[in-house]
Amino acid sequence: MDLTPSPLAKPFPAMPAIDGAVLRVARARYKEWDRADLTFAELAEGTSVAGVFTKSACASSEVELGRENVANGHARALVVNAGNSNAFTGYRGREAVVQIMEQVSEALGCPAEQVFVSSTGVIGVPLPKGKARAGVAAALEAQPCSWEEAASAIGTTDTFTKGAHASALVGGTRVELCGIIKGSGMIAPDMATMLGYIFTDAAVEPAFLQQMLSRASSETFSCITVDGDTSTSDTVMLFATGKAGNPVLSGWESAGADAFYSALLEVCRELAQLVVRDGEGAQKFIEIAVTGATDDASARKIAMSIANSPLVKTAIAGGDANWGRVVMAVGKAGEPADRDSLSIGFGGTWAARDGQPLPDYDEAPVARHLEGQDIRIDVDLGLGAGRATVWTCDLTHGYIDINADYRS
Amino acid sequence: MDLTPSPLAKPFPAMPAIDGAVLRVARARYKEWDRADLTFAELAEGTSVAGVFTKSACASSEVELGRENVANGHARALVVNAGNSNAFTGYRGREAVVQIMEQVSEALGCPAEQVFVSSTGVIGVPLPKGKARAGVAAALEAQPCSWEEAASAIGTTDTFTKGAHASALVGGTRVELCGIIKGSGMIAPDMATMLGYIFTDAAVEPAFLQQMLSRASSETFSCITVDGDTSTSDTVMLFATGKAGNPVLSGWESAGADAFYSALLEVCRELAQLVVRDGEGAQKFIEIAVTGATDDASARKIAMSIANSPLVKTAIAGGDANWGRVVMAVGKAGEPADRDSLSIGFGGTWAARDGQPLPDYDEAPVARHLEGQDIRIDVDLGLGAGRATVWTCDLTHGYIDINADYRS
Repeated sequence: MDLTPSPLAKPFPAMPAIDGAVLRVARARYKEWDRADLTFAELAEGTSVAGVFTKSACASSEVELGRENVANGHARALVVNAGNSNAFTGYRGREAVVQIMEQVSEALGCPAEQVFVSSTGVIGVPLPKGKARAGVAAALEAQPCSWEEAASAIGTTDTFTKGAHASALVGGTRVELCGIIKGSGMIAPDMATMLGYIFTDAAVEPAFLQQMLSRASSETFSCITVDGDTSTSDTVMLFATGKAGNPVLSGWESAGADAFYSALLEVCRELAQLVVRDGEGAQKFIEIAVTGATDDASARKIAMSIANSPLVKTAIAGGDANWGRVVMAVGKAGEPADRDSLSIGFGGTWAARDGQPLPDYDEAPVARHLEGQDIRIDVDLGLGAGRATVWTCDLTHGYIDINADYRS
Repeated sequence: MDLTPSPLAKPFPAMPAIDGAVLRVARARYKEWDRADLTFAELAEGTSVAGVFTKSACASSEVELGRENVANGHARALVVNAGNSNAFTGYRGREAVVQIMEQVSEALGCPAEQVFVSSTGVIGVPLPKGKARAGVAAALEAQPCSWEEAASAIGTTDTFTKGAHASALVGGTRVELCGIIKGSGMIAPDMATMLGYIFTDAAVEPAFLQQMLSRASSETFSCITVDGDTSTSDTVMLFATGKAGNPVLSGWESAGADAFYSALLEVCRELAQLVVRDGEGAQKFIEIAVTGATDDASARKIAMSIANSPLVKTAIAGGDANWGRVVMAVGKAGEPADRDSLSIGFGGTWAARDGQPLPDYDEAPVARHLEGQDIRIDVDLGLGAGRATVWTCDLTHGYIDINADYRS
């Protein structure tokens, strides 16, 4: 497997420790490889938890149990298995997850429902219980590791490790947020899947934590796409240990709630964009901003229709300011749009306004913009105040190479 | 432009003349090329017409006027321009269409609303009125041409000409149906678009003709996809000259209505599949059959989710029986599905049943099947009686080559 770093990769940032969260990794050897592939996070008593999970109707047992237990609001541990997604494995897969939950619950003396498990990798093969048991035992004994080591251990086909950090003042107390993520387009059935974990030392009531994560997720993780495919295991979780000692955040009226949300949004946006930057075969990062839609939801659907269009993505790969393909993608979104009020631009230059090509359209600045790595497409529908921004990457020969596993 | 015939091409079939329909072609030279690019069909008085058009919110003036006028039920002529789609050209584009309608209406002495126009090719450039006028004049004077010449003249990036024929007995009278189509995946903004025209000598009331075309289209043209993109000009029209002298078909209770519909469905299915066989870069034709869904509409959504999944399409390109990617595509369709009752097979061999890989799954026959050009994927949801079959092609490097117009 080619793991040359993506040309859009970013270096792993400096990230502070989070009081109340200790990370460890171990080698469960879920595949024939010599690397850490089991990640274990131990969380302080009283840690609040929130989660957003794939909407796939064929979700894994990890996701089913996670969804169920996150409603209880508290977490003491997280276990992430890399190399085997344990998806589509029926009751045997579920048994493996329950075994891990019980093993950790005994070791930490906490309820099993406070132990969260994620798995990523091949589909259809039940997680081997023996390897999982030995891996968890090794992780419980291991030395604490760095953010970067944990980010690396949760990875599968990722070509670079991904992390993000932000801080905020909450009632005068500084709180930290650190996140790691893995994912490189939806290649879940083989290896990948988007798994993201954010840790903060802030004190936040579980219900409000969930409210903020759901909202931030809808503005970030729900706004990225590599190939329009959705994994059976996509998961983002947020753990708040409460060790910073800030006045507890319990709702939007709490002091510092807005500041905390801003920092959370920043971490989520960065993590989401890093996944796009590791899109399979990606050579260009594309931001698509839609304005003037009838409402925000409509704007998002139109933006995603453009972002998922193979014709738009191949045009950008070829450096072609093909606004006709953008028109097509707007038209097929099934949302209110009026040909005669539609405007389209690239990198800040309008190519068409109010349904017609600009007579004095100068393609030179657009061509220069499209030679770069960071591409911006603007679409104004001229109908209302709805707006949305989404992120994707171009579609190149590299995508085909990675996904068409030619058998020789 | 590489116009090497698709490896999935079929030879143009022998097709009889249709009494009451005369085809002619001319060189309007909409592009710098030396080929017929304007097709003109003159239809007998009293010809019934039906049409299905793109649902794009950014449709061309041709589509807007066609939709409007088809409601009147009668047609005397069809003009198809190749090389310029006239889409996204505002009032100037509309003027060109109206000019063609009026020119033909004067020549034939019929209402302008009985003249139908389609255009396919580059977007954003108004159809040049001078070229259109001279082209129509030349076509009015030209000798009648063959089905294959007309099929070739409506083509743009097609790598082979496409036609289909069927006949039926209606109340003891033999009627003929002949269809031509162009399209090779959604590359509309540059050149293509799906335009299909079916001619029959049967006598059919316009309202029933529309009812049958809409139904047949939903089972055929709505069940194909190359890349999930939808053109701003997609059009399928059906003209019934009534010259066969059969007892007029006015509803399902008419003698021969079922036989006529079967023949129409056969022609539509063949035309639709020919478009997929000319999919950009296609090396394999893929049939996806979904059964056991809660209803037919749900089955179709799930089948299209699989057919549009770049991961499934690249797996097939690579000869990889990757049923995990099919699970993923089922899961993301947003339709009722239950992991534990889901079964997936390739070429008649089940790989997974009731949510689990088959323990005795023999991959050899599946691998042999996937080496062929005609691939079949079966998905059974185990929930109800809903079923649907859709057709697509694989996703290869050829698609990227064709659509990423690298500027040198």
